[in-house]
Parts: sequence; structure tokens; C-alpha cells
Amino acid sequence: MQILKDRIRKDGKIKAGNVLKVDSFLNHQMDIKLFGEIGKEFKRRFADVEVTKILTIEASGIGIACIVAQYFDVPVVFAKKTQTKNIAGEVYTTKVESYTHGRVYDIIVSKEFLGAGDKVLLIDDFLANGKALEGLAALVRDSGAELVGAGIVIEKGFQVGGDLLRSEGIRLESLAIVESMDEEAQTIVFRDDE
Amino acid sequence: MQILKDRIRKDGKIKAGNVLKVDSFLNHQMDIKLFGEIGKEFKRRFADVEVTKILTIEASGIGIACIVAQYFDVPVVFAKKTQTKNIAGEVYTTKVESYTHGRVYDIIVSKEFLGAGDKVLLIDDFLANGKALEGLAALVRDSGAELVGAGIVIEKGFQVGGDLLRSEGIRLESLAIVESMDEEAQTIVFRDDE
Repeated sequence: MQILKDRIRKDGKIKAGNVLKVDSFLNHQMDIKLFGEIGKEFKRRFADVEVTKILTIEASGIGIACIVAQYFDVPVVFAKKTQTKNIAGEVYTTKVESYTHGRVYDIIVSKEFLGAGDKVLLIDDFLANGKALEGLAALVRDSGAELVGAGIVIEKGFQVGGDLLRSEGIRLESLAIVESMDEEAQTIVFRDDE
Repeated sequence: MQILKDRIRKDGKIKAGNVLKVDSFLNHQMDIKLFGEIGKEFKRRFADVEVTKILTIEASGIGIACIVAQYFDVPVVFAKKTQTKNIAGEVYTTKVESYTHGRVYDIIVSKEFLGAGDKVLLIDDFLANGKALEGLAALVRDSGAELVGAGIVIEKGFQVGGDLLRSEGIRLESLAIVESMDEEAQTIVFRDDE
């Protein structure tokens, strides 16, 4: 998706440890017009599949998922990262290892909101080692719903997540796949660059 | 807002301890069409003020804020609840006491995304004791931005938050104000009911 890649090149900041900061438009401040274009593009790529629900994970996936959902005309469910007293006991749960925070946490979805008959599209902002997306896929599997695909805004193609999920047969659409980054020169190579 | 009040009466569940569960359409599963109606209504109520940015707090405020932002044509910034390594050192921060989780946490916003010249509308799903909204207002004040108002989907009118914030001169628009709830009968009285 060219306007996304252009935006990452313009406003993304490459930090030590292969960190790509895109918090000026994607995951802290959010450019809602760009999210609209992202929504259109996911709808175009998944035009051939029926989707009844979008599943994402708090926090930075939620905004994108909600705008994307307008193009599919479906509700969004977000997996929560800890058990709160507002969630009833009846939940699907799995463990996820966080790369960003360096810890393991539980993610949960209420059984009321995911189940057999649902055709689920996963949406998230980033894919790196794939742990969060694998966790979401596990929740879908446990619920008896059908996983129709996963839409990712930025995939770090040099980390294992994308290859892993594709090898498991998950239909994965990433709008920008970063092949490599150079911190000193602040340059990015995308997978399908000429 | 009548369709919101109707929906709360239809799908909300009243639990012990004055808990109103609306997680089937507002803050776990999210009805994006309803969010669109909420966005239109906030735009109508704040039609007379200039807004350059919407500020909310993770996690359940984000989806609503993003849909609402489409009607104001502005970006959204969400305050984060803990310091992560993807946030630079330069942040505004304040402490918030959580009613739901029973603990105190830090909320932060990067100084890059809030500052003098911004006219900020706060958006959140719930207002009870007002601690989260007061925290967001404090971040706006610290940044030198102007706080033009706060839009809340559901206010618990029997808790202190609404009165407190209005007495501080904050222009507060709540789309549904719950005056009282009866757990046994599962009935709700809204402030402006006939």
C-alpha cells in the first residue's frame, strides 16, 4: 500500500534494536483519515471472503479495527490483556508473550462474543514475532469460530511472525512489509520495493 | 440520546455494586454503527467549538474516539496507562486511581502530540468517579493546550464525577446519564426520563 509506505518513510523513526516508531500516526497519535484508507484496502484484499466479526487486541489495534469494521459492516471484539471485574467468568483465554513489554500476559475474550458461526478477521497494527496474532488465532479456534484471515498494517518481515503464521495456513495480508531498516541512515527497505 | 438509552435498557446488565455491564455493544464487543450515531451526536453538541484533537485513554475509549474523530476531522491521541519502551522519555504524566481495577496507575502522553495551540475534546466511554477524565484534563493543562470539552457515552449520575467536573467549569456532554439502577428488577432510570 503505497501511501502507507510513503507515510512510514516520512514519519517513522528507526530506533536501536530494530524498533520502528510510528506513534505519530498509527499507535499513539492516530491519523483517522489514513485509517480510512487502510480500511478500504483491507476490504479490497478480503473482498472474496465473508466476515461476520473483527477481532483485535488492546490497545493499539482497537482504533484501526473500528475504522476497518465500517468497511465490512461488522462489530469489533477486542481481546483484553488482564481479567477485570467487569468481565464475567466465562471467557476464552490464552497466554501471550509480549516483545514490547518483555513479559507474559493472559488475553481473554468473553464467550458471549465469539463462537461457532462467526467468520473472524483478525486486525492488528504490528506483526513481529507473531505472538499476539497467534494468541488471537488460538481464541478463535477455541471458540469454534472460523478464522478467515488476518490483516496487519505493518509487518516486520525480518522477524519470524509472518513466515510462521503463513506456514500455519493463515491468510495474512500485511499492508507494508519492512524487509530491513538502517538506523544510522534512517532508511527502510520494503519487501516489494523495486 | 434516545437510541443509546434504548440500547442500554435492552442490552445492559445491572450487576451487584452498581456495575452496569454494556460489554455487548460498548466496551468489549463494539457496535460500530452505534458508534457512528454517537459520533454524529457529539458533533451536534459540540458544533459551536473548534476542535483540533481528540484525547482519550486506553483501552475502551479508543474505538469510540476514533469513530467520533471522523465527524470532527481531527486526529486522536490516546493516553497510555504504563510506560513502554516504545514511548520516548518526553511525556506528560499524571496518576489516576482506577475504580474498576482498584489500583493507582500512571497515564502518559508524548509531548510531541499535545501542546499549546491544540483545542482538545476528551472522549471516553464511562464517567463514574471522574478520576480518568480528571487525569486527562490534567495532561491537557500541563501541555498548554486548551480543553474545549468532554464527551462521555454513559455517565453514572449517582457517582461524584459528573458534578465534580462540571463544578470545575469543564463543559461536559454525557449522552446517557444513569440516575439509578435496580439490580433485582433490572431497571434503569435516566436523568431526563419523563
